[in-house]
This record gives sequence, structure tokens and C-alpha cells, in this order.
Amino acid sequence: MRNWMLLLAFNGTAYRGWQIQPQVPTVEGTLEQALSRLTQQHIKVHGAGRTDAGVHGLNYPASFELDTALTPEKIRVALNALLPHDIVVKAVQEVPQEVHARHSAVGKRYRYQIHNLSYADPFRLQQSWWVRRSLDLDAMREAALLFLGVHDFRGFRSVHCTSSSTIKEMREAELRELRPGVFCLEFEANSFLQHMVRILTGTLVEVGLGRCTQEDIREALSTGQRKLVGQTAPAHGLAMLRTLYPEGLISWPAEALDP
Amino acid sequence: MRNWMLLLAFNGTAYRGWQIQPQVPTVEGTLEQALSRLTQQHIKVHGAGRTDAGVHGLNYPASFELDTALTPEKIRVALNALLPHDIVVKAVQEVPQEVHARHSAVGKRYRYQIHNLSYADPFRLQQSWWVRRSLDLDAMREAALLFLGVHDFRGFRSVHCTSSSTIKEMREAELRELRPGVFCLEFEANSFLQHMVRILTGTLVEVGLGRCTQEDIREALSTGQRKLVGQTAPAHGLAMLRTLYPEGLISWPAEALDP
Repeated sequence: MRNWMLLLAFNGTAYRGWQIQPQVPTVEGTLEQALSRLTQQHIKVHGAGRTDAGVHGLNYPASFELDTALTPEKIRVALNALLPHDIVVKAVQEVPQEVHARHSAVGKRYRYQIHNLSYADPFRLQQSWWVRRSLDLDAMREAALLFLGVHDFRGFRSVHCTSSSTIKEMREAELRELRPGVFCLEFEANSFLQHMVRILTGTLVEVGLGRCTQEDIREALSTGQRKLVGQTAPAHGLAMLRTLYPEGLISWPAEALDP
Repeated sequence: MRNWMLLLAFNGTAYRGWQIQPQVPTVEGTLEQALSRLTQQHIKVHGAGRTDAGVHGLNYPASFELDTALTPEKIRVALNALLPHDIVVKAVQEVPQEVHARHSAVGKRYRYQIHNLSYADPFRLQQSWWVRRSLDLDAMREAALLFLGVHDFRGFRSVHCTSSSTIKEMREAELRELRPGVFCLEFEANSFLQHMVRILTGTLVEVGLGRCTQEDIREALSTGQRKLVGQTAPAHGLAMLRTLYPEGLISWPAEALDP
């Protein structure tokens, strides 16, 4: 069978996350439906990973097997004609047989957007958490550095998380300000636990509000106690930005990659 | 009577433009309703100018008279509690009696957003025109300069436009690329005719597609013939960016101004 990889962008507002579930709209389910209509067969799609309801995808990869005479560009255009406006295929490429969107991944990068203005911005509402009380961004930027390196993040996951290993390597954790009060947090690690980015974000926001200290974070990392850290930030501010693969395995056209 | 000026942002998708009309949702109508609920009296609001259905406002000023003991910040917060999520009051200030959002204006600046990618971006769809065929941005950038200065723009207005004077001074006309394929056109003039920015944009896109030349634009500017220029670009890509007032008349807090 030929093996294909898609690069997707999706606005997650209308979906109950990536993973297919009966009776509710999911990104995976919507994509598999479009593929079924295109190919007249059932195709199982493998996404880079689960996402929570309402979370977005900026450069989200998914792989599937299909024997077809269609060119990658024909597949792309045909799928986009079948998909709703909130999901788009930005690029398609044929990949070696062993490549799998999730199993081949060696890391992920997430972006969490926040606007810390006195008003909720009508153009950002679906993609950015409005935090009204003034945040100390320098304190947040500094505290983010505590997450760098190899840590046991069991204090920073959902109670429903079933991951066997809670030790992760955080390679980047940074705050980038786009304009005064409008910023994002970006986290890159080998992998993430359930709700981990949202809890890291909630914790840094507590730091920005002066309600959580660097010492609290150090203690949560060493003891694994969930109660020491912040609330889970809302889903709609979060987007999966990038899935990382071994060097040279996948290369997308620059135009298709959201920066 | 005390005189007030509001700085608004609105996502125009759900509205039939700024100006109040019976039976249909308008930004002005929605704002007057919120003001009525707040003050228990009918308040006439004066916006900076009409906008077409679907056009957005990034820093849109509106003035009204009201005797009240409320502070500007109380007015702001109370109105935001009453307004729907797609309209927000970013700032409120008391202004001298003679100030009027429209009559006092000495210029306006509009932004038209375009994404020239092989796919329609799900995060830009409401605010940016998707142009699929590849555009020559350098040609567009050069052609935009032809609009600078004082010209008779009667070839660049809607057939329904009733302005008595079609001579306008274009002070800026520029193309700014945000990332490859994602750009905006910005136009600043003393005032604009109906549909003028959308026709200027449609014309520059024709230039970018190689279907309209600089010579065509020069001729349209000198003869006023509408048929020489491009189609009217869709409303949803357009936003009023700023209304200009005489130096020192109004100064908004930096945080409230979308750049």
C-alpha cells in the first residue's frame, strides 16, 4: 500500500477534539468521511495525537494508507472540496511505508495564546484566552524556564491521564509578546501528558497574577503534587503548532507551514 | 450635555454594516440598544462613517452626548457587559462639546487583508480574502503608488455612491507582507467614496494577476471610467483601521489601539 501524510490546519471550535467518537463531531471523523467519499472505501487515518475539545491545529500531520493513481496535489484539492471550511489540507506527500504520524514523532510543539487587555478582543475570542487582570510577563517568562530539562510532570496532568511515563524532556518553554498585552506561550517537548500544556499555562498565569511562586513550581516538579500548581487553562487558547520528526523524514513546503 | 467618544472594535460578519436600519442587525443599532439599556433613554450615536455589510472595525470611533455621573471606565465596562461578543468598547473618553466622530475627522485609514495561499486558511476566513491564483506582489506594490496624491476617484466608486465630490487626497497606499503569501493593503486618505477601498483592492489584485496594467490605472484615474478597473473585492477582507483627527484632539491609551 502507498503511504501518505497530510498537513492539516483546523479551527477546533466546533469539534470534540481530534479523536473519532460516535455521535459527536471530531476532526478525525470529519476527515475520514471526506476520504471515504473521495475513495469509496473506509480509510483509517492516524493523527499526530489526541487534542482536547476546542483545541486547534496549525500544522497538524496525519497519515494513512491508500493505493491510488491520484497525485498528491489532486488528493489535496479533492479533500478540500469535500471538507468543511474549518478544516483544510495544506499539503500532501507520499512517505515511506514505515512512517506513521504518531509513532514516528520525536517531539511536539504547542502554542497557547493569551490577550491580557482590559477588553475581550472580538477577533481573538476563538483562539486566545482573555485574562483581564494585569499579568507580570517578566515573572512568567522567568518561571517558564523552570520547566526546561527532564522532569517528572505527574503534578501537571489531568486526573484522567493514563500515560505510563510522566517523565518528559522539555526542550523549549518561552513567552513571546506580539504586542503589549498580546502574547503566547510555546512549549516543546519529546511528548506531553493529558492537559499538560493547559496546566503549565494555568500555572504560569498564576505566577503572572502573583498567586504562585517559582518555589511552588519547583516543589510541584519535585513532589508531583497537583494542588501546588494552577488551574487548567481553557482549551480554546491552545493550538498544536508542530509535530517533530527525525531530520529529513518529512519536509513540507515552506508556504504550507504556519510560523 | 457632556460629550463622549468611544473606541470600538467589531467583527462585522454578523452585521449589515455600521449604519442603523430597521429589522436588520447593525453595529450602530446594537450599540444604541446597549446605551439605551444602560441609561434608560434613547441616545443617538455618531459613528466615524458607514461601513458595508461584513466589514470590520479595528479602531472605530463613535461619539454621543449624555449627562451622567458614570466615569468613563464605568461606561466602558457596563457597555461591554451589555454588548454581544463581536462588538467591544476598548476605551471611553469625555471630549469637548464640538467634537463629533464623523464631522471632526480629517482622514481615514483602511486595511484590506488577503491570503494568497494554495488553501483557504480556516483562521483567516472571516477577515481575509482568499485569492488562490498566484499574485505578483511587487507589481501590486508598484501600482499602488499610482493612487498617491490628489486624484478624481470617480472611476473607483459604487454606482450607488452619492458623494458630491470625487476628488480625494490619497496619503498612503502600501502593501505589507506579514509572511509569504499573507499580506494586507493599507490606504489612507482625507476621505473615501463608497466601495472605493474594495475597488482599489480589486484593481490591484487584477494587476497582481497580470490582467490590469499601470497604464489602465492611469487611464481610469484620468478618464474616470469604471470599466477599466477591477472588480469590487469582497467585504469581509476589509477593516476600518483608524480615523484621524486634528493633532491633540483625541488621544487613546496605547493599549486600546490595534496596530
